[in-house]
Amino acid sequence: MKLNSMGLRYGDGVLEILDQQLLPHHETWLQIQSVTQMIEAIRGLKVRGAPLIGVAAALALGDSARRGSQFEQLAQEAQALYDARPTAVNLMWAMDRMRAVLRQAPEQILKTATDIFKEDVVLCQKIAESGLSEFKDGDSILTHCNSGGLATAGIGTALGVIRKVWESGRKIHVYVDETRPLLQGGRLTAWELGKLGIPYTLIADNMAGFLMKQGKVQKVVLGSDRIAANGDFANKIGTYSLAVLAHAHQIPFYVAAPWTTVDADCPSGEQIPIEQRKPEEVRGASGHFGVVQWAPHGAEVYNPAFDVTPAHLVRGWIMDRGLFDQTAVRAGAFQKK
Amino acid sequence: MKLNSMGLRYGDGVLEILDQQLLPHHETWLQIQSVTQMIEAIRGLKVRGAPLIGVAAALALGDSARRGSQFEQLAQEAQALYDARPTAVNLMWAMDRMRAVLRQAPEQILKTATDIFKEDVVLCQKIAESGLSEFKDGDSILTHCNSGGLATAGIGTALGVIRKVWESGRKIHVYVDETRPLLQGGRLTAWELGKLGIPYTLIADNMAGFLMKQGKVQKVVLGSDRIAANGDFANKIGTYSLAVLAHAHQIPFYVAAPWTTVDADCPSGEQIPIEQRKPEEVRGASGHFGVVQWAPHGAEVYNPAFDVTPAHLVRGWIMDRGLFDQTAVRAGAFQKK
Repeated sequence: MKLNSMGLRYGDGVLEILDQQLLPHHETWLQIQSVTQMIEAIRGLKVRGAPLIGVAAALALGDSARRGSQFEQLAQEAQALYDARPTAVNLMWAMDRMRAVLRQAPEQILKTATDIFKEDVVLCQKIAESGLSEFKDGDSILTHCNSGGLATAGIGTALGVIRKVWESGRKIHVYVDETRPLLQGGRLTAWELGKLGIPYTLIADNMAGFLMKQGKVQKVVLGSDRIAANGDFANKIGTYSLAVLAHAHQIPFYVAAPWTTVDADCPSGEQIPIEQRKPEEVRGASGHFGVVQWAPHGAEVYNPAFDVTPAHLVRGWIMDRGLFDQTAVRAGAFQKK
Repeated sequence: MKLNSMGLRYGDGVLEILDQQLLPHHETWLQIQSVTQMIEAIRGLKVRGAPLIGVAAALALGDSARRGSQFEQLAQEAQALYDARPTAVNLMWAMDRMRAVLRQAPEQILKTATDIFKEDVVLCQKIAESGLSEFKDGDSILTHCNSGGLATAGIGTALGVIRKVWESGRKIHVYVDETRPLLQGGRLTAWELGKLGIPYTLIADNMAGFLMKQGKVQKVVLGSDRIAANGDFANKIGTYSLAVLAHAHQIPFYVAAPWTTVDADCPSGEQIPIEQRKPEEVRGASGHFGVVQWAPHGAEVYNPAFDVTPAHLVRGWIMDRGLFDQTAVRAGAFQKK
């Protein structure tokens, strides 16, 4: 059995992660030989992307079982992994599923972990298939942040759709928002598209509107962190501005996400809390490339991690259960049954 | 005679510039003792902002005359200054004006230079007065790039309006777009507002839409590089996105500029050429704080220096000759008489 993804691989008892902190300039695979090492990798953002974190944690635990760890230790390790990134819903979900089998045979525990990996691969494929018909030969597609193979065990969500369209033989071009302040677009999405050989152009976030005005963007597609029952959704800061700009230029705007992103208990975007992050992120930039600050020391900063886009600006919700349009969402597709 | 501005001062034969490359972290004044030194300062972007460059070049030439330089040398120096930044219209205009007096007495040459300085101060004041009535106590005002005292001999254009509103006693708050890729907002506008004691909040460019959606922005005001006869205008990249976002949120959007910015020979924004700059600027960031690159080496980049905003998105053109509205501009206020 070999599992291979863009940021994670497992086979013959060797678990490795691609150190995403060093991308795009160094492709360094780290062997993970203990749950403690995986926790450090998760905390240090070497493994990132909500789905990938869940998969990586499950595999670390499954491999611990394979090496002979007993129930007591595995239960402690599951708890420690659970606590590694407190807000990661996928991580909690993966650990809950692993906990349910920790008294079973090691092979069974490891199988549960590899199942989680494989299911994520299938999920991404289904999302991509749902979106495929919306994109045409010759389209230039704008995306924001990173929603690709580095964030999942599969081909990704929004970037997975783009990859599937490309692999179907349609000649497309991708415009990549750099995605300030954390630069996931400039660092990760650019790297990923380069790796896949899909032509792309990197832009500063404030250039998107001018590109649209010139007719250079035919579609926008990006991911989501949470979708409310009315179709409003939260995603990386900057998403809302793109949605308004796309609407003003009559450019179809899509969100791609797994069904698990739907929070039917959340009636609308109004109820989605907005996390504020550290001012240092906006005062400068930091990463493996160094730490720089260009703003005045102590400059007052507004730094929301994400924003909320109202459903009426969305052309389609691309999900593993299919493509949902305005009519479907208004009819209650995301509401509690 | 003492001349004092935020980025330039002259008195008793001492000409000094504030090194803008070192802002905001170091406030270093450099004494300029020759035209050659001024050319180096202009080329090295230590003096920047189109109006300020013209004023600084004129003063360097005037001071050379005061030190006893004769016509032949002054004419050569005027040409060298003229060539220091080939695309700076204000610089050419200032040098043409100085050339016309180079055969006169040294005092007269110097007086022409100081007149250019003083006229720019008056121009900024008039622009600010034209805009004053549009801004209210309690307004939060969004601006982009740097159009302030660091770019002119006076209080600036758009930022001059903001300063005048603040000094009139109205309690306002300024949101400052960092203005990728060159970060003039994060570096210079943030510094300038801090220096003036005007409360501000720095944001990444992609956060502007979400601020507007939350009702946190009441007005947008920014500068211009060129205004066409129909009122379309060119300004720093990102301006067009802000104009569309402001329009979608019914937020008044203003441009502030001197009358000399109007190019009546240019019928509309369609005819304004867009300068493309180096890809390195978008692949990372650089300045006195260091040089960093976060994008893949050789990443394809789109990097227009500015964009064009159509007149219909503008509430008012704030100029030294008064405030122009849609009706005035449509009636031909900027057209050749």
